[in-house]
Amino acid sequence: MGLPKKSVFVVSDRTGLTAEELCRSLLTQFPGLHFMTTVLPFIDSDDKLSEVVSQINLASETDESRPIVFVTFVNAEYRKRIDQARALVIDVFSSFMGVLSRELNTTPSWQAGHSHGVTDNARYNSRIDAVHFAMDCDDGVNTDAYDQADVILMGVSRSGKTPTCVYLAMHFGLYCANYPLTDDDFIDDKLPEVLRPYRGRLLGLTIDARRLHEIRQKRRPDSPYADLARCQSEVRRAEGLYRHYRIPMSDTSGISVEEIATILLQQTGIRRELLG
Amino acid sequence: MGLPKKSVFVVSDRTGLTAEELCRSLLTQFPGLHFMTTVLPFIDSDDKLSEVVSQINLASETDESRPIVFVTFVNAEYRKRIDQARALVIDVFSSFMGVLSRELNTTPSWQAGHSHGVTDNARYNSRIDAVHFAMDCDDGVNTDAYDQADVILMGVSRSGKTPTCVYLAMHFGLYCANYPLTDDDFIDDKLPEVLRPYRGRLLGLTIDARRLHEIRQKRRPDSPYADLARCQSEVRRAEGLYRHYRIPMSDTSGISVEEIATILLQQTGIRRELLG
Repeated sequence: MGLPKKSVFVVSDRTGLTAEELCRSLLTQFPGLHFMTTVLPFIDSDDKLSEVVSQINLASETDESRPIVFVTFVNAEYRKRIDQARALVIDVFSSFMGVLSRELNTTPSWQAGHSHGVTDNARYNSRIDAVHFAMDCDDGVNTDAYDQADVILMGVSRSGKTPTCVYLAMHFGLYCANYPLTDDDFIDDKLPEVLRPYRGRLLGLTIDARRLHEIRQKRRPDSPYADLARCQSEVRRAEGLYRHYRIPMSDTSGISVEEIATILLQQTGIRRELLG
Repeated sequence: MGLPKKSVFVVSDRTGLTAEELCRSLLTQFPGLHFMTTVLPFIDSDDKLSEVVSQINLASETDESRPIVFVTFVNAEYRKRIDQARALVIDVFSSFMGVLSRELNTTPSWQAGHSHGVTDNARYNSRIDAVHFAMDCDDGVNTDAYDQADVILMGVSRSGKTPTCVYLAMHFGLYCANYPLTDDDFIDDKLPEVLRPYRGRLLGLTIDARRLHEIRQKRRPDSPYADLARCQSEVRRAEGLYRHYRIPMSDTSGISVEEIATILLQQTGIRRELLG
C-alpha cells in the first residue's frame, strides 16, 4: 500500500469486543484508507493505562497524523486520563450514556463485564450447552436428540449448515442440529424418515450450484463430489424436497453466516436475543 | 417485574448486529430497568421503513414513555425518516461518522454490508474453513491435522475447550484444535505423545475443581465422572503437566468464552483481528 497508515487503538478495561466491532463497522466505511488497528483489552490498572497512553503518544509522534482511539472504560478516572492522550479519543459508552441517562432518568451503574462477561450463570450455561449440542448434533449424527432441537438445518454438503448452527448456538443460545442431504435421501425424493416428526422445526439451506462447485473443488479437487453436474442435481433435488414439504428455504450464496442467521431468525419468528 | 417496561428497537438495513451489541452493552449499565428489545433487521425498502416507523409510534402511544431506537442505516434518506419517529433515536453510525470524517479528511462511502457481510471472499472462506477445522479437530480427534493448527487447547473434560475453539475460529479465523486430558494421559504425567511436536502451540485450560464438579454433575449426575475428588485430582494433574512443560495456562472459572478467547489471544501474541 502506498498510503500512509493510520494507527487505530481499541482500549478497554474488559474484552474490548464491543468497541472493536463498532470500530470495524465504522472504519470499513473508509475503504480507501490504510488502518493499523491494535486492540488492548483488560487495561484495568494505573500502570497498564500509563503504558497504553505512552504507546498512543509514541504513535502520534512517529505517524504522519495523530492516532484514533476507541475506548470503552467503565472506570471514570481512566476515561479522563486516556482523554489526555495525543489522539482523537472516541469514548464509545460516554457518547451515548449521557443521552440515555437523561432519557431513562437513571444514572448508569458503570459496572464492568456486563456485556461480554458472565452476569447470569444459568443463561451463560445454557449458551455453552447449546454450543455442545451443535457439536454433538453436527452432520446428521445423534438424531435421537432432535426432540431437544429448536431448529434443524438441512441441506447438501457445504451449503453452510455447520457454521450457521454453531453461530446460532454461540450467540443466541439456540439448540440447532443439522442434517446433511445425501444421495440416499434423493432416491425417492421423500423427507428422510428421521426428520418427519420435526417438520415444524426444519429449515432448508440452498446455494447456487456453481458456488457450491467452487467450494467443493477447493476441498476435494476434481472429485465426483465436486463435479458441477452433481452439484446442480443435488441442489435441484434438495430445493424440490423443501418445496414439496413446504420447508422454509434460504439461499446462502455469497452471504455471511451472520446474515444467514439473521434471515433464519426472521423466518422462524424465534425471539431474537443476543446473548454473547 | 413491577417496573413499567421500556420499549427498545434496533433497526438496520443490514443484520443489525453491531447496533444490537452496542445497545446491549449500554442497557446492561441500567440493571434496574426493564427493557423490551425488538430487533428489526434488513429494513431496506420504503415500505418496510414505514411499517417500522408505525410500530415505533404505536409503542410510544401504548407505553408510559417514548421508546428508544438504535439505528444503523447506511441509506441517508432512511436515517432522516426514522429520525421523525416519536422516540429517542440514537443513530449509531452518524454519531461517530462526522468526527471520523473530519479527522480522516475523507467522506465515508456509506456502503452496506461492510461489517457483517462478505466483502472479502478469501477472508470469509478461511473463517468458515476455520470453523470446520474446529469441528473436525474437536475432542482429540483428527490429530493428524495438528500441523495446520494455530493453537491446540488442552484441558480436562468440560474445562471450556470446545466453545473457546469454536469462538476463536468463528470470530478470528484461527485454526484451533482441542485435546482432552483423560486418565490415560495422567498415568505417567508426561505430555501425550501426539502433542509433543507442537509444544509451541499448546495452551492449557484449567478450572476450579468445585465449579468443574458442578458442571459435570449437571451432565451426568452422581457419576464417577462428576465426583468432586476425581475433579480435584484431574485438575491438579493437568496443572502439574502445564507447569512441568511450561505450557501457558488459563483459568476459565466464572469467565465467558469471549473473555477466555481474549486472554488466550493476549497470551499467544497472535495478532488479533476480528473477522466476524
